[in-house]
Amino acid sequence: MRNLLLMSSSRADNPDYLAHGLPWLSEHFAGKRVLFIPYAGVTMSHETYTGMVQEALAKENIQVTGIQDYTQPAEAIAEAEAVAVGGGNTYMLLHTLYETGSLDVLKRRIQEGMPYAGWSAGSNIAGPSIRTTNDMPIIQPRSFNALNVVPFQLNPHFTDAMPKGHRGETRSQRIAEFMVVDSHTPVLGIMEGTALKVQGQHMQLLGEKDGVVFADNTRRTLKAGSTISHWL
Amino acid sequence: MRNLLLMSSSRADNPDYLAHGLPWLSEHFAGKRVLFIPYAGVTMSHETYTGMVQEALAKENIQVTGIQDYTQPAEAIAEAEAVAVGGGNTYMLLHTLYETGSLDVLKRRIQEGMPYAGWSAGSNIAGPSIRTTNDMPIIQPRSFNALNVVPFQLNPHFTDAMPKGHRGETRSQRIAEFMVVDSHTPVLGIMEGTALKVQGQHMQLLGEKDGVVFADNTRRTLKAGSTISHWL
Repeated sequence: MRNLLLMSSSRADNPDYLAHGLPWLSEHFAGKRVLFIPYAGVTMSHETYTGMVQEALAKENIQVTGIQDYTQPAEAIAEAEAVAVGGGNTYMLLHTLYETGSLDVLKRRIQEGMPYAGWSAGSNIAGPSIRTTNDMPIIQPRSFNALNVVPFQLNPHFTDAMPKGHRGETRSQRIAEFMVVDSHTPVLGIMEGTALKVQGQHMQLLGEKDGVVFADNTRRTLKAGSTISHWL
Repeated sequence: MRNLLLMSSSRADNPDYLAHGLPWLSEHFAGKRVLFIPYAGVTMSHETYTGMVQEALAKENIQVTGIQDYTQPAEAIAEAEAVAVGGGNTYMLLHTLYETGSLDVLKRRIQEGMPYAGWSAGSNIAGPSIRTTNDMPIIQPRSFNALNVVPFQLNPHFTDAMPKGHRGETRSQRIAEFMVVDSHTPVLGIMEGTALKVQGQHMQLLGEKDGVVFADNTRRTLKAGSTISHWL
């Protein structure tokens, strides 16, 4: 039974790293040792990134090790009690999962029920593909196909706000473009400070802000706190 | 001798389509008939998109035909007097240029001196790759490699502004990630209402706003109106 916590971001109104998600992460990991995958981090080392996560989760007495400490990343995932994947650049994350042969084993472990938590890029990869990421394509992954452990695309950091004077596409316009290309795959947009909790065939929107879902050329609101299992 | 006009966007403070760029486009195309490539358009038809451009350029007595009117797109490019490529989704644009076998012939014609104008996505593809686009990867192109008719990456719609409360990466952070992955290729960010004019080995920043260049792990300002040929 899949067991996923997919957070929009590492920070919300509380600026401390992962602070707003600590209660969720604590319940989600429930005493398990966590293998952290920092591959989405680009401008800081894997060690530095892992240190930030270790420090944050230590407050909940959750032990964290970084995948870079293992010579065989895929084996580390195969044997992990739980996995967390942090944010950063989604293309770099997916590229590195492919290059290290980690994607398939991570998918299998999630399908077997190993707890998985992700935020930002780490949430993006839970869908069928990374085709609704907001990130810059700094590196070309072998494929845009991702874990596909939920049947919808994710759009973390969802917002309708635009910087003043900006003439580029709005987020909704970008997702509308996606719907033209792929009308069969819903896109769930989750706002800062919110998360999707998926347990088997049950899904709830955690946090205090509504989410959005784009499907069938229609935009609908997902009520904060509501059960939204029918999108699974 | 290459002859390029690379605009940030189709709209600036004047909300009419292409209005702020009409003087530049008029001089750039200098009476030539223009072949328009609307492949970046996703949420409107190629015909509708071409109609908008025809209407805008008619004010300068520039004749425009859409590439969709030709059965052989690559041949249309081979025989064109000038080419304009509009904005929209950069991935869809590059994907379609590959699928129609148009990319190589477009590159050759630009190298031979055929006037080329692009805005937004149409500017993005002038660089070595699309790895600094802001767009959503709604479709996977065969490769991220693009026209490579200028030796730097482009970032149209450049801004430092962020919507309030947003916790995703800023534009500068995203480009900083690119520099970690590829430290040898400069990135030129051009703001709304500005453009790069490239003639052979000469390049000028048009418009009233400064641009930015990211190179050697340093961000520098490009003065509005200045000659910046050393980045070629």
